[in-house]
Amino acid sequence: MPKIVDYAAQKQMIGEAAWRVIQREGVENASVRKIAKEARISSGTLQHYFKTQPQLLEFTMKLVVERVEQRFAVLNEQIIEITLSSAIDVLLNFVPVNEEQELEAEVWLALTVKALHDPTLHEISKQTYQSIYETLLAMLQQLSKLGLIKQELELNMEAQKLHMLLDALTLHRMVNPETITVQEMSSLLTQHMAGLASD
Amino acid sequence: MPKIVDYAAQKQMIGEAAWRVIQREGVENASVRKIAKEARISSGTLQHYFKTQPQLLEFTMKLVVERVEQRFAVLNEQIIEITLSSAIDVLLNFVPVNEEQELEAEVWLALTVKALHDPTLHEISKQTYQSIYETLLAMLQQLSKLGLIKQELELNMEAQKLHMLLDALTLHRMVNPETITVQEMSSLLTQHMAGLASD
Repeated sequence: MPKIVDYAAQKQMIGEAAWRVIQREGVENASVRKIAKEARISSGTLQHYFKTQPQLLEFTMKLVVERVEQRFAVLNEQIIEITLSSAIDVLLNFVPVNEEQELEAEVWLALTVKALHDPTLHEISKQTYQSIYETLLAMLQQLSKLGLIKQELELNMEAQKLHMLLDALTLHRMVNPETITVQEMSSLLTQHMAGLASD
Repeated sequence: MPKIVDYAAQKQMIGEAAWRVIQREGVENASVRKIAKEARISSGTLQHYFKTQPQLLEFTMKLVVERVEQRFAVLNEQIIEITLSSAIDVLLNFVPVNEEQELEAEVWLALTVKALHDPTLHEISKQTYQSIYETLLAMLQQLSKLGLIKQELELNMEAQKLHMLLDALTLHRMVNPETITVQEMSSLLTQHMAGLASD
């Protein structure tokens, strides 16, 4: 079914173009016209795939979620044989340490804010939160099972605190990169995990 | 000089109308037309005060900063006689615990994202970050001077960590209010400060 594949590939290609426009100019400037130009197609062709700009944004946000979830799938395998030190590597997947993850963080932040006033985006945003939380919780449960972190920890609460730390690092790195380097993000995560380690 | 006072009061009134529109519909939907309607003036009259929508957004963001800084001035007085328990009350000024602060948080978040692609807004956003950081640092220095927190703490680092915690609480409360109550925000701050307390 080559036509279906083409259709999906074309949508994907447009979604990635939207992603680049959002990153460069912000969500509020990501017009259908600009995204079509970035994707090197006409606005008319774009509207064949996405009738409205909100539909396009929704697709783009889902694309971000998918990318992140693909990384999660890999992470979930790493979690089985986790150590405190490899846990840091897992956590570094959730903060902007390289260009790809900076782009994800930027799109995540912009769409998170947009989601405050858009029920469909809000649903996607909530799902991402939930899915990150569950990955963190699974990691902590495995660390606990292996006796690597304190047994008395309330893991739901610790997963939430870790989640908040990751979001805070992302936010500060995006807004004020001069106040926090990638090295410092890594060291704050190491410090945090050391605080959970069993004696 | 009644005219000047009127001019400033009118600008303030428009800024507050912009604030409400942003909170209700998001920054990307805060058009000059809607803000004029909210302020019960014509778009023409609004343009007498703000030539462009970015000028209006800049003014609104400064308004948020001013509000927050007025609270800081009060806080700085409280800091002199601070205790670990009153420190929590100081910190609760920086997270959305009531409607007024929710509105501030929403505008802050929306404009922070917009600031990523707007140099003027970015400058204001950086100033706010700096000013919050300095208030937190002053508070920790006073707590340290009074012997209420561990003497070996690196206060610059602790101020940054506290700042990140406040932003994380704000973000999670705004995006997923069902995952964190005001009571839980307060208890996480209490827990964090207890971790700094001298033995």
